[in-house]
Amino acid sequence: MSWSGWGDPAKARELPEQVRALLRDLLGVRAPETPAVRLEEVRLAPSALGDHVPAALEAVVGAGNVLTSHEARVRRTRGKSTPDLLRMRAGDGSDAPDAVVLPGSHDEVAELLRVCAAERVAVVPFGGGTSVVGGLVATRAGFAGVIALDLGRMNRLLGVDTESMLAMFEPGVRAPEAERLLAAHGLTLGHFPQSFEYATLGGFAAARSSGQASAGYGRFDDMVAGLTVATPAGPLDLGRAPKSASGPDLRQLVLGSEGAFGVITALRLRVRRVPAERFYEGWRFASFAAGSAAMRALAQRGPLPTVLRLSDETETMIGLAKPDAIGGSGSGSGCLMIAGFEGEGAAARRAEAAGVLAGAGGEPLGAEPGESWAHGRYSAPYLRDSLLAAGATVETLETAGFWSNLPRLYDAVRLALLGALGSPLVMCHISHVYETGASLYFTVVTPQHGDPVEQWESAKTAVNTAIVAAGGAISHHHGVGRDHRDAYAEEIGPVGVEILRAVKSRLDPAGILNPGVLVP
Amino acid sequence: MSWSGWGDPAKARELPEQVRALLRDLLGVRAPETPAVRLEEVRLAPSALGDHVPAALEAVVGAGNVLTSHEARVRRTRGKSTPDLLRMRAGDGSDAPDAVVLPGSHDEVAELLRVCAAERVAVVPFGGGTSVVGGLVATRAGFAGVIALDLGRMNRLLGVDTESMLAMFEPGVRAPEAERLLAAHGLTLGHFPQSFEYATLGGFAAARSSGQASAGYGRFDDMVAGLTVATPAGPLDLGRAPKSASGPDLRQLVLGSEGAFGVITALRLRVRRVPAERFYEGWRFASFAAGSAAMRALAQRGPLPTVLRLSDETETMIGLAKPDAIGGSGSGSGCLMIAGFEGEGAAARRAEAAGVLAGAGGEPLGAEPGESWAHGRYSAPYLRDSLLAAGATVETLETAGFWSNLPRLYDAVRLALLGALGSPLVMCHISHVYETGASLYFTVVTPQHGDPVEQWESAKTAVNTAIVAAGGAISHHHGVGRDHRDAYAEEIGPVGVEILRAVKSRLDPAGILNPGVLVP
Repeated sequence: MSWSGWGDPAKARELPEQVRALLRDLLGVRAPETPAVRLEEVRLAPSALGDHVPAALEAVVGAGNVLTSHEARVRRTRGKSTPDLLRMRAGDGSDAPDAVVLPGSHDEVAELLRVCAAERVAVVPFGGGTSVVGGLVATRAGFAGVIALDLGRMNRLLGVDTESMLAMFEPGVRAPEAERLLAAHGLTLGHFPQSFEYATLGGFAAARSSGQASAGYGRFDDMVAGLTVATPAGPLDLGRAPKSASGPDLRQLVLGSEGAFGVITALRLRVRRVPAERFYEGWRFASFAAGSAAMRALAQRGPLPTVLRLSDETETMIGLAKPDAIGGSGSGSGCLMIAGFEGEGAAARRAEAAGVLAGAGGEPLGAEPGESWAHGRYSAPYLRDSLLAAGATVETLETAGFWSNLPRLYDAVRLALLGALGSPLVMCHISHVYETGASLYFTVVTPQHGDPVEQWESAKTAVNTAIVAAGGAISHHHGVGRDHRDAYAEEIGPVGVEILRAVKSRLDPAGILNPGVLVP
Repeated sequence: MSWSGWGDPAKARELPEQVRALLRDLLGVRAPETPAVRLEEVRLAPSALGDHVPAALEAVVGAGNVLTSHEARVRRTRGKSTPDLLRMRAGDGSDAPDAVVLPGSHDEVAELLRVCAAERVAVVPFGGGTSVVGGLVATRAGFAGVIALDLGRMNRLLGVDTESMLAMFEPGVRAPEAERLLAAHGLTLGHFPQSFEYATLGGFAAARSSGQASAGYGRFDDMVAGLTVATPAGPLDLGRAPKSASGPDLRQLVLGSEGAFGVITALRLRVRRVPAERFYEGWRFASFAAGSAAMRALAQRGPLPTVLRLSDETETMIGLAKPDAIGGSGSGSGCLMIAGFEGEGAAARRAEAAGVLAGAGGEPLGAEPGESWAHGRYSAPYLRDSLLAAGATVETLETAGFWSNLPRLYDAVRLALLGALGSPLVMCHISHVYETGASLYFTVVTPQHGDPVEQWESAKTAVNTAIVAAGGAISHHHGVGRDHRDAYAEEIGPVGVEILRAVKSRLDPAGILNPGVLVP
């Protein structure tokens, strides 16, 4: 993983000339004056931990599993939001951990938490490092230092129960490795978020991830049947049945807790058979409203596709501006929908859905747009790196709401972005649908002016305020982190905040777990 | 609702002579020596509240909405478990509230909580009064008295959002009234638990109810998109989207909280269109294991019926012993499955499911057993009253687990009952299925010996211990109440208990809300 960008540097994408022209002529983007620094140029403070604490940590996890090198620290600094990347490109390593610690078991995690509480060392659980909401930056005030608790060594499939269709995993397994391990049993999680190539199962659970096939396979939180968690107060082992009336569902308190209550050390996940059939296809609708009504019909009356996403007019136009897409599907007018069908009965569901979509005014575009989307589904973050280098800030943000409130949310976010950034390019899609509502996912492109981090953060603050005021959830699947913490407090209200604080202070009385993240 | 039994006394059922003979000859049941008391004979302590507190409560809810009559207190005493009924039949009113208070709004509930905290009066939220786990009995120690907070006046449909397929309700609406109000819009909740005729929407949410059509419509917790809660710490308003990554799902902390954290004052519920098509039918399998494997196939690979239940050999035999069922479906051997299909595409799903069931060894029995089950679905609790009067203790209990663990759970519960009760009649069915597991629902009939309450409670303790030891959830849909509290503590472990206590003490610092219920 690139330390200052996304993914494998070998997969970095050059911007097509058509996109360069668009950036230059339409948005006024100019190349930045200062090039990005090299890894060894990133400015880090000396490790604050001295010798005593690393030795105590090494006594828990063994020699070689406490890293304090420049590169190890840089590579666990922040996540992958655009401000994160901009700061790294500028050589700002001020949020780096003092050490990286790699435990090998639940017991080692528990013992590390004991040592860190005693030494007042803050602990940032670190999976794939793909947070885009500031979920990996601890508040240093009041602590002797900060460690990144890297779960990378806890990367085993612990067992498969095909009768119950459950798989037991350690938290540090990356998604592609999880799929590879499950494929040997003919199984899949079906969880394919944008972060798929790097994110870990523990991270998916801690941040309530949702994948591109959520309509068919569910969100990641739907897949979690059981969890083991190491907390400073002791172990928590939850999930004896799919669902129960055994009081509040405490699993749902760990899911989305973003490392602030404990460290997930094992997961019991619902799995499915690898699908034999698979069809992805495109549809065009006259407007975002018409396409959205068609999605709602599928979500409420069925048949629900496995993948269902709808780009608004702007995203459709920009998407079709890609050289190899032009001419493929007629004009770029209207709104492009991708519908994917997997598993048993996929052909029948596809045929039935086609009737619903055509009846709702959709024009079938055939398999090409679907296959093209599926092929390029993980490439957008690579494109961001090229755009940043070209002098454009590009970032994504998202929300969710009930169907009747989506138009208000859509307008509120766009207005906030236009107000804060002048005339940015704002694109949107719906990619997660439910019977009662859906997500809205925005991509923003704007020329960099002044300090691009400050420029973006003021826009982000305006959007957060707008989302909360318009009755939306502050995040559908990115999470809360630091970037949404204040808006999240507004969303759940003062009593909701008190609940979080009560749980936090009981499970983590020293407050060492991810301080500054999630809990307002 | 009968004060000492179930439901409308006019619907009380006489036992068929065949059942009387079975009880007498097979189980040795003898009629009890003492007949049940009349309502006015129930022994109540004088109200502990004096004049001052009722006056303060009346100042909040208005004249006529604070009841202290003998009948009002008796009718809010305990719930509808068999020990509850046995105690009432014996005239034991020791758990009666000192007063019944009927608020008319969220603000009145909030103000009542303030008054009760100041006066140290325990508050038992009361919906339909159908708890079967001791969820309506407060611990008196340390309190000046106990009130039943009856939500019966908060019984309005507040609005319908057909675009989002959501309906907003007050908590005191009973299920049949909710269905009547929704039917005017062509909508339904599809929630039909055994308690349907009396239970309220707020109670369903507070206790995580699950209805007989849960395979098709989901559990009640699946239907709750939003909640408003009055807590002593202030109001909580949750649910801006179907799902989100806005931290832990705090709705799931209120669901199942059984009145211990706050009082639900409004619900936003997902609704569906009233189904146009509906088919219920019967199937016979050679064994519980074979039928259960067939259910699992439908739950994991589809198509999932709307209703799916399977009786074990004993329940099948006893069920078929009913006079009007004999001869209807051949012999009573094997295990009876009921499969119901509702809504769009019901006929096609039924046909497809028939292929799966036949392939799994099922013998189709046609519509008669399905329609017969649907017709009699709410009558079992009435039968219990007749059995109690005849001298048989009859009670139900339930658990849930992952598929691979169900045989162990099944054996563990049966062994515990046989060990505690000698040779009771133990029947079981599976009535709620998920991809990864299912519920087990047991009905026990045993002749009364000595004090029937003590007799049952020792059996119940043995079963609770057995369920926890066998890795099951202490309840699939009855809840925790007082009767499962200790076993629940074992299930969630000491850290889970600390979470509940932390939330409880932050939201309800005076501990007035349903003390003794849920929180260990």
